[in-house]
Amino acid sequence: MKQSIKELKDLSKICRGDILKMTSVSKSGHPGGSMSSIDLYLSVFNRANIDPKQPFKKVRDKTVISHGHTSPGVYSALARFGFFNIEEVISGFRHPSSIFEGHVTRGIPGIEWTTGNLGQGLSVGVGFALAAKLKNEDSKVYVFSSDGESPKGQIAEARRTAKKENLNNLIVILDYNDIQISGRARDVLYVDLKAEYKSAGWNIIEVNGHDFEQINEALEIAENYKLGPTVIIAHTIIGKGVSFMENRHEYHGSPLSDEELEKALKELNIENDIQKFRTAREKLPLKKSEKNYPNEKLNVEYGTPITYENKKTDNRSAFGNALADIAKSNKEKFPVAAIDCDLLPSVKLGEFKKVNPEGYIQIGIQEHNAATISGSLSASGVLTFFADFGVFGLDEPFNQQRLNDINHSNLKTAITHSGTDVGEDGKTHQEVNYMGLIRSMYNTKLIVPSDPTQTDRVVRYAAQNEGNIVITMGRSKIDIIKTEEGKPFFDKNYKYEYGSIDEFRKGEKLTIITYGTFAHIAVDAADILKKEGIKINVIGIASPLHYNDEKLIPYLMNNKIITLEDHNVENGIANEISKTIVKNNININGMENFGFNEYAPSGSSELIRKIYGFDTEAFANKIKEFLG
Amino acid sequence: MKQSIKELKDLSKICRGDILKMTSVSKSGHPGGSMSSIDLYLSVFNRANIDPKQPFKKVRDKTVISHGHTSPGVYSALARFGFFNIEEVISGFRHPSSIFEGHVTRGIPGIEWTTGNLGQGLSVGVGFALAAKLKNEDSKVYVFSSDGESPKGQIAEARRTAKKENLNNLIVILDYNDIQISGRARDVLYVDLKAEYKSAGWNIIEVNGHDFEQINEALEIAENYKLGPTVIIAHTIIGKGVSFMENRHEYHGSPLSDEELEKALKELNIENDIQKFRTAREKLPLKKSEKNYPNEKLNVEYGTPITYENKKTDNRSAFGNALADIAKSNKEKFPVAAIDCDLLPSVKLGEFKKVNPEGYIQIGIQEHNAATISGSLSASGVLTFFADFGVFGLDEPFNQQRLNDINHSNLKTAITHSGTDVGEDGKTHQEVNYMGLIRSMYNTKLIVPSDPTQTDRVVRYAAQNEGNIVITMGRSKIDIIKTEEGKPFFDKNYKYEYGSIDEFRKGEKLTIITYGTFAHIAVDAADILKKEGIKINVIGIASPLHYNDEKLIPYLMNNKIITLEDHNVENGIANEISKTIVKNNININGMENFGFNEYAPSGSSELIRKIYGFDTEAFANKIKEFLG
Repeated sequence: MKQSIKELKDLSKICRGDILKMTSVSKSGHPGGSMSSIDLYLSVFNRANIDPKQPFKKVRDKTVISHGHTSPGVYSALARFGFFNIEEVISGFRHPSSIFEGHVTRGIPGIEWTTGNLGQGLSVGVGFALAAKLKNEDSKVYVFSSDGESPKGQIAEARRTAKKENLNNLIVILDYNDIQISGRARDVLYVDLKAEYKSAGWNIIEVNGHDFEQINEALEIAENYKLGPTVIIAHTIIGKGVSFMENRHEYHGSPLSDEELEKALKELNIENDIQKFRTAREKLPLKKSEKNYPNEKLNVEYGTPITYENKKTDNRSAFGNALADIAKSNKEKFPVAAIDCDLLPSVKLGEFKKVNPEGYIQIGIQEHNAATISGSLSASGVLTFFADFGVFGLDEPFNQQRLNDINHSNLKTAITHSGTDVGEDGKTHQEVNYMGLIRSMYNTKLIVPSDPTQTDRVVRYAAQNEGNIVITMGRSKIDIIKTEEGKPFFDKNYKYEYGSIDEFRKGEKLTIITYGTFAHIAVDAADILKKEGIKINVIGIASPLHYNDEKLIPYLMNNKIITLEDHNVENGIANEISKTIVKNNININGMENFGFNEYAPSGSSELIRKIYGFDTEAFANKIKEFLG
Repeated sequence: MKQSIKELKDLSKICRGDILKMTSVSKSGHPGGSMSSIDLYLSVFNRANIDPKQPFKKVRDKTVISHGHTSPGVYSALARFGFFNIEEVISGFRHPSSIFEGHVTRGIPGIEWTTGNLGQGLSVGVGFALAAKLKNEDSKVYVFSSDGESPKGQIAEARRTAKKENLNNLIVILDYNDIQISGRARDVLYVDLKAEYKSAGWNIIEVNGHDFEQINEALEIAENYKLGPTVIIAHTIIGKGVSFMENRHEYHGSPLSDEELEKALKELNIENDIQKFRTAREKLPLKKSEKNYPNEKLNVEYGTPITYENKKTDNRSAFGNALADIAKSNKEKFPVAAIDCDLLPSVKLGEFKKVNPEGYIQIGIQEHNAATISGSLSASGVLTFFADFGVFGLDEPFNQQRLNDINHSNLKTAITHSGTDVGEDGKTHQEVNYMGLIRSMYNTKLIVPSDPTQTDRVVRYAAQNEGNIVITMGRSKIDIIKTEEGKPFFDKNYKYEYGSIDEFRKGEKLTIITYGTFAHIAVDAADILKKEGIKINVIGIASPLHYNDEKLIPYLMNNKIITLEDHNVENGIANEISKTIVKNNININGMENFGFNEYAPSGSSELIRKIYGFDTEAFANKIKEFLG
C-alpha cells in the first residue's frame, strides 16, 4: 500500500471535488456513479503494481473500467496517484483537444482499455488474465463493474470462462449502488447478483464500498485466495459524499448547476476554484488529441511457407496448417493463442491444438465474450487468432470487434466460412456482409485470399504485421489458381503484400475484378473465352477495401468492367470500384456488378452458384453478352 | 392431446427414421440432436393449440426452435402431425428448391421463426408471449432450447425479462443431452443450468426427455402453474434410438453412411426406401423456394401530424411526440409497444409512457435481448418501436437485427443518437456505420430525416408501412429547414414518401447531396454563397440507400458533386452516389466526399463540426475552393 487508510480517506474527499468540478466545467459527464466508485478506485490503485512513471511497463497489474462512464472518478484517482496533472483533467475533460475523453480511453496513462459500451469489461479482464497466465507472469487484473451493467449477457459468458480457466488472478470489484438512469436498478431489471456469480462458481465477498478498511481486507483476501475468480460486491451510494446527491438517480448523467456545485464543495470542504478551469478550458486549442496504443510488440517468425499444388484444398485448411506452423516457429518466444467457439473441426484448429495445446482456448458458444477476450489478449504480448464462421466471428460480435478496432488491438480474425460458401446451412450462416462491416472499422484490414497458397502467405503476413486483420475464407475444397501456362499462379516464391493486385489473366476491352474463391469462376470463364479468341483481364484484389488505385486504373480505363464477388453486391467491391472510377475520373465502357442481392437458400455451394448463374459456363455467357 | 402416449411412442420411431433418411439423402444436417429432441417435439406439437389446416390462424400457441439445426426432427414431427408431406421433406431437405432449409425457417407451416444463430430463441419466445399478454390472448409459447446453446449470454438476458414480465404462458423445453460439436458440453464449457434458471427466479422441472409420460406430466404442470415462466430440463441422449449413435458427438452434424443407415433403420424396424427419395431429389428443379412471412397485418391510423415552426427541436423529440400521438390514435385497435433499454429520457419515450403505459416495455441494459424481442413482438400484431442509441440499437445487436431482417419482421427501430451527434460521450457512442450496416440487410429500409417536421412524417410513414424500418436521428436541437423565402420546407401539407428526394436549394454547376441533420450545413452554406452570387443545388435524400435514380440524375449531370454526411465517409452515401454515376454512365465534373474518416474525439457536436471543417463558414469555403 502506497497510502495509509487515513490518507485514502482524505484523498476521497479531494477526488469527489475533482469529479464535481470536471463535470461542471465540461457541462457533461457522470458525477453520480463516479462518486459511488471512487473509494474503490482509490483502494485498488493504491495496492496495484502500477507505476505512474512507467504506466505501461511490461509486467504490471491491469485495471479495466467496464462502466467507462465513471471516467471522472478514474481520472481523478489516477491523477492523485501521480499519473497525470489533475488541473489538465479538470479543464480538459470531454474537450476534443484533451486526452481525457468522455469514456475511459486506452493510451491515457493508467488506462488499459477503451470502454463505454457496457458489458465488455469482464471479458477484457479475462483476456488480460489469460495473457498473464500464458506468459507465467505474476500479475493481477482488477475489473471494475457495476450493478447497472450486470444484465448484459456477455458478463454471464465471461464469468464462465474465468471459472473454467481458473483465473485466480482476476478480481471483479462491483459497484452496487442500485441506481441507474431510469431509477432503482432492481426496478429497471432485477439481477440476483450473488446467485448469478454463485451459479458460475465464483468466490463472493460483500463489503461496504465506502469503508476503506473493509475494501482493503476484501482485496487482501481476493488477491491471495487462489481458488478461482473472486467478485467483491461493494454496496455503495450514488452521489456519496454530498448529502443532496446521495441516492438520487438524477445525478447519474447530469453535472451540478453552479449553485449546487458551490454547496457541494462547501460540504466537502474544498475551495471552489472552478472559474480558473473554465478560463483554462476556453483557451484550449481547436484540435484533436493524440494517443498511443501500447500493444506489446512481437517479433514474429515467418515460419516455413507451405505451397499447394495439385491436390484440392480448402482455404480454411491452409489457414489451419499455416497457423500450426507459425505456432511451432514462435511458441518459444511468446505465447500463440487460438480462440475457438466449439467449432474445432470446422475451423481447422486440430493441428494447432496438437502442436500448441496450451494455446488452444475453448470459449464455447459465447462469441461476444470470445471476440473481446481475443482483443485484449492480442494486445498483451500473445499472438492471437480468433477462428470462427463469418456470422459468429463478425456479425454476432460486431460491436465487440468494433471496440477492438477502437482499441487498436492486434487481433487476427480467421473467418473460415464466409460468403455463401458455408455448405447447406442456409441464410442464417451465410455471411455476405464482411466488406460492409470491416469498412465500418477505421483501423482494421480485410484480406480475402483466392487459393490455399495465397491463404498460407496471408496468414503469415497477418501474424507478422501489427494491428487488427480479418481474413475471410470459404468452406469448399478448391484448386490452386494457375497461370495460362498451367503453372501455380502463387508459387513457392510468392509473398503477400497488403494492397497488391493480382493479374490472373491479361486481355483487353473487359476487366473482371474479383477476390476470394469466386476468382476461380472468373479465371475459368476467361479460359473458356480464350478458346473462342476472346481475351479479357481478370484481376484479383485480395484486400478489397484498400488497394492501390494507381495499379488498378490501367485495367479500368476505356474497358468494360465486371465485378464478381461471393458477397452482397450492394455492400461489396462494386462500391469500392465505383468510387475509384468516379474519384479518378476514369472513362469506362460500362460496368456490371455480380454478387448476391437476396438471401440465398440452403444448398451446396455448387447448386447455389448454378442457381445464381455463377457456374463457369453461364458466367462466360454473361461476359459474352456484355461484350456484345 | 391429439394422440395417445402409445401413438406418440410409435411415431417417435417413425420420426427417427425420417430424420436419418432426410440427412442421408441430403448428405448433410444434424441427426444426433434431432434424435435427442424428437420426443419433446412430438409431445408439444401433440398438446399445443396448432392446426395443420390453418397453421397461421390468428390465435394459436407458438413454438420457437432455438437450436434451429434440429430441423430434421422438427420437420419430421410437423409432417407426421399433418402440416406437410413427409416425402417432400425427405427428398427436398436442404435442397434450394425445397422450403425445408437447413435451419428451421419462418413461413414453413408450423414454423414461427427462422433460427440458426444460437441463443436468440428464448428472446423470440418472450416477444411472442408478451404479444399474447398485450393482446389478452390465452395462448402459450413453447421455446425449445438445448444445453449446447445455453452459454449464450442473450439467454441469461431473456430469462430475466421473462421473469420480470411474469410470463406464465412461456415454457422452455431444454434438451440436455450433454453433447456438442467438441464433445461433452460440460467439458466444452460448464453451465450450471439449474442454478442459472433458479437465479433468475424460474420454475424448474426435470424429466427424462425420452419418457412421454414424464414429459406430458411436466407440460401439464407448466401450462397450469401460473407462477411465472417454467423450464423443463429434459435429460436426453444424443442419437437416441439407434444403439451405435447414442451418446456419440460425432453424429452431431454428420449424416450416416449408407451402411450405417441400413443398420439403423433395421434397428428401428423401418423399411429402407432411401433410394426412392434420392431419385426424387435428382429430379428437383434448379430454382429457389418461395415462402411467405405471415406478419399479422395492422391497419395503422396516421394520427394528427405535428408541424414544427420556429422553436428549435431535436429530431428525437419529434419522434417521441409522433410516437405518443400514434399510440393515442391506435391503441384501441391493437397494442402499440415501445421497447427501451434504460434510456427513457434520452430516447424521448416519456410522453409515450404517459399515454400508453402498458405498451412501455423496459428491458434494461440488454440490447441483444431487446432487439430480438422487438422483432418477434412486431410480427405478432403489436405495432412495435425499439428506441435506442445507434451503437446500442444497431452495432451491439447487429446479428439480432439481421435475423429480424431474415424473418421479415415489422419492426421500427428509432435511433435517437446517430453519427457524431451524440453529445460528448465520445467514439464508443458515435455510430457512424448505420448505412453500412443496413446496406447489409436486404429487407430493411433506412430513413434519415433532416428536421423535426420531416421526422414527424417519417415516424408516421414507418408506422403505416409494413416491414423493418430504421430511422436515425441526432441528439442536438435544430431549426427546421426553410426555403429560400424563409418558409418551412416541410410544411403542414408535407407527407413523406420512401425513395423521394428533396430539393432544398436550386442552383447550377454544383450539387451537394446530403441527408439527416448535416443537410443544415449544406443549406446554410448555400445561402452564404448565394449572397456572393453563387447558386448551387442542395439535395436531401432521406432514404440514402434507396432513392429514385431518375430524379437524382438531372442534379448530377455535368455538375461538380459534393456528398456531405455525418457518417463514415467510406461507408456512406458516397458509395451509393458513385454507383449511380457509374451505372448510369453520368458525366460529372468531379466529386468530393465529406464525412468522417476516423473516430472523432469526445466533444460537443459544435466543436466536432468545427474541428472537421463542417461549420457553415468553413464548409462554404470548401465549396468555393472546389468550384475553383
